[in-house]
Formats: sequence, C-alpha cells, structure tokens
Amino acid sequence: MKISVILAHPNEKSFNHAIARTTVKVLQDNRHGIYFHDLYKEKFDPILPVGEIPQDAPIPSFITKYCDELAASDGIIIIHPNWWGQPPAILKGWIDRVIRPGVAYGFLEGDKGEGVPKGLLKARSAIVFNTSNTPEEREQEVFGDPLETLWKNCIFGLCGITQFYRKMFGVVVTSSESQRRGWLREAAGIVNRFYARDQS
Amino acid sequence: MKISVILAHPNEKSFNHAIARTTVKVLQDNRHGIYFHDLYKEKFDPILPVGEIPQDAPIPSFITKYCDELAASDGIIIIHPNWWGQPPAILKGWIDRVIRPGVAYGFLEGDKGEGVPKGLLKARSAIVFNTSNTPEEREQEVFGDPLETLWKNCIFGLCGITQFYRKMFGVVVTSSESQRRGWLREAAGIVNRFYARDQS
Repeated sequence: MKISVILAHPNEKSFNHAIARTTVKVLQDNRHGIYFHDLYKEKFDPILPVGEIPQDAPIPSFITKYCDELAASDGIIIIHPNWWGQPPAILKGWIDRVIRPGVAYGFLEGDKGEGVPKGLLKARSAIVFNTSNTPEEREQEVFGDPLETLWKNCIFGLCGITQFYRKMFGVVVTSSESQRRGWLREAAGIVNRFYARDQS
Repeated sequence: MKISVILAHPNEKSFNHAIARTTVKVLQDNRHGIYFHDLYKEKFDPILPVGEIPQDAPIPSFITKYCDELAASDGIIIIHPNWWGQPPAILKGWIDRVIRPGVAYGFLEGDKGEGVPKGLLKARSAIVFNTSNTPEEREQEVFGDPLETLWKNCIFGLCGITQFYRKMFGVVVTSSESQRRGWLREAAGIVNRFYARDQS
C-alpha cells in the first residue's frame, strides 16, 4: 500500500517527531510505500491564494505534487499538536491547498458549491495522532474536543474516508519518559493494525 | 473604545470584505479607535517557529505590534470564511503567534503548561462573523459547527472574554444581492449593539 504521513511540529525534538519516526518505521517494516512530509522542514507555504480556489484553476507544480500523492494514497496518517483545538497554521494550509476540489472531493453537476460534495479520495482509512497539554476531561467538557469532528467529519468524512481513528496523547508537558515510551508503543500498534504487512 | 478588526479572506471582492467595510464604518461612526488588519493584504506570516513558543521568548517586532494592539483592545471583531470548520491558515497563524502567553493568557506559578490558564485580555467582548456555503442544518448535524466552540471556548473563553457573539452568514454562493444587503444591515446592527457610540 501507499501511505501518506503528514507531520506538523516546529521542534525536531518534539514528541510529535518521535511519533512520526515510529509511524514511518512500522510502515517500512510492513513494506508499504510512504509519502512522508515534515511540513515545517519543507517550509510548506500555507497561504491559499484567491487564484487557486476554483476547481479548474492553474495550480503551482509543488502543490500538484502534494495533491497527486494524496490522491494515490491508500491510507493517510496525520501527526500534529493540539493548538487551540486546531492544527498548526502550516497544516491548516496543507488542508486548504492540497485537499482540493477535483482531488479529494467534487461537486455534482449543476451544484454551485452549496450541495453535499462527493468524496474522491482513494484512501479508505485515516489515522490522526495528536499531542496535548490539556487534560482529557477539560478538553471534552470545556472545549468539546473540536479536533475529533474537524478531522473525522469536516475533512475525511467529506472526502469519502469511512474508517477513521484518532488518538490524542497527553498531558505531554508533565509526562514521564516511560509514559512516552508506552505511548509510542501504542502508536506503533495502531499503525500496525491499520496498515499491516502488505501481502501483495 | 479601541476595537481590533481582523479580516482573513484572499478576495477583495468577497462578502467577507464587504462585512469588514461595514464593520469599520459603524465603528468609525461610533467614534471608536480601530486596529484594522487585512491579513492577506499584509501578507501576514502565519508560521509559528519553535523559538517563539516560550512565554519569555524574543519576539519579532512586527508580531509585538500585533500583540500590543490586541492587548490594548476593548473589543475584538474577527471576520473569515468557514474553511473546513476552521479559519483560513493565515488567520490560524495570527492565533498561533499573536494570542501569546503573557499577552492573552498566563499560567499560574508552578504550572508547567498543563493547568487552567488565566485570561489576560483587557477586552470583555468579541464578535466573530463567518461566511459559509454549507447549509446551517448540515453544518450543525454533520459537522457539529466546530467554529462555535473554537472561538467561544478554546480561544476567547480561555483569554477571559465572557461576552461573545458569532454569526455565520450563508449560503453565500447561492445568495441574492438583496439577501446580502440584509446580512450587511444585520452585521451593522450587531456591531452597533456591542460597540455603541463612545460617550467618554
């Protein structure tokens, strides 16, 4: 299988990077092809310009590459910290520019953009790994854990992905070394369960 | 009063820009001071680098200016389209970089970042104007309208703002001229109610 792994965290020493390394290792061991993007390292430009909005707009070639990889993926893994109940801006820009009409979703004929789009992604499954410094109870009760519906319904559901799994690790800032080791084992187990060794 | 108005839409002919012009006009008529930012026009750089994360980190002077204005504001008005249940990346970056610890919220002594922060903003009220091409029923039932909790609880609630009003106008793409005129009157009425003529 071909799996996209998208990472958005500015610190190479972060636990997000550790999750990304673990994820890539499991996918390699399972003999999958991997499209790996560390958006900060690549200095991804997150600003969607007005000219890119129409479905048939001309798209810069570096964005086309991201789009082609996403379209070719059999699975998607997203890794980012919980910043204000949302992804970091650099990843929001990847959503804005790469999850495009005609690539990830399309409108039915005669629809000006107000209808229910058709999901176009080939991938049937997606995993989101988040890190957080907000205790889980507060995240649920005070904030309503918006990352769940953002990724599950607003983004991947709309693009046709039905199998979705999300795990928020935390509280990271007060965690111990052995807790973090346990979380990495858990992440590895999830990736391994979703994307087992390729038999083809 | 001093009111911050933050606009994030790439198209100057958009309805978002029309809302922003209406908002600024009402505030001017009511003799308020205005900090107006059209983030696309200003080419705001939304990427929070690792070095800016600590509360006592050195901050570039252009970010300090945004922070000082936010801290000095008696009210805040945000205008943006609903893109994937979230703001455009450029505005997410304004949140990531400008709504900083020490400016908008602070941790209590001995808190490493896992506790409940104290809101520090002087502003007691905020308005968010959104535009959308998703019918309201679908936004509520399928997506859970994440913009409501994002702005109300995750962001402004955390920063100490208790009076919050949000209005999502739509469906914009199929709206008539007279509908849009009505929406602008509604927006003007909301701004006027929150930020009436300054008597001081």
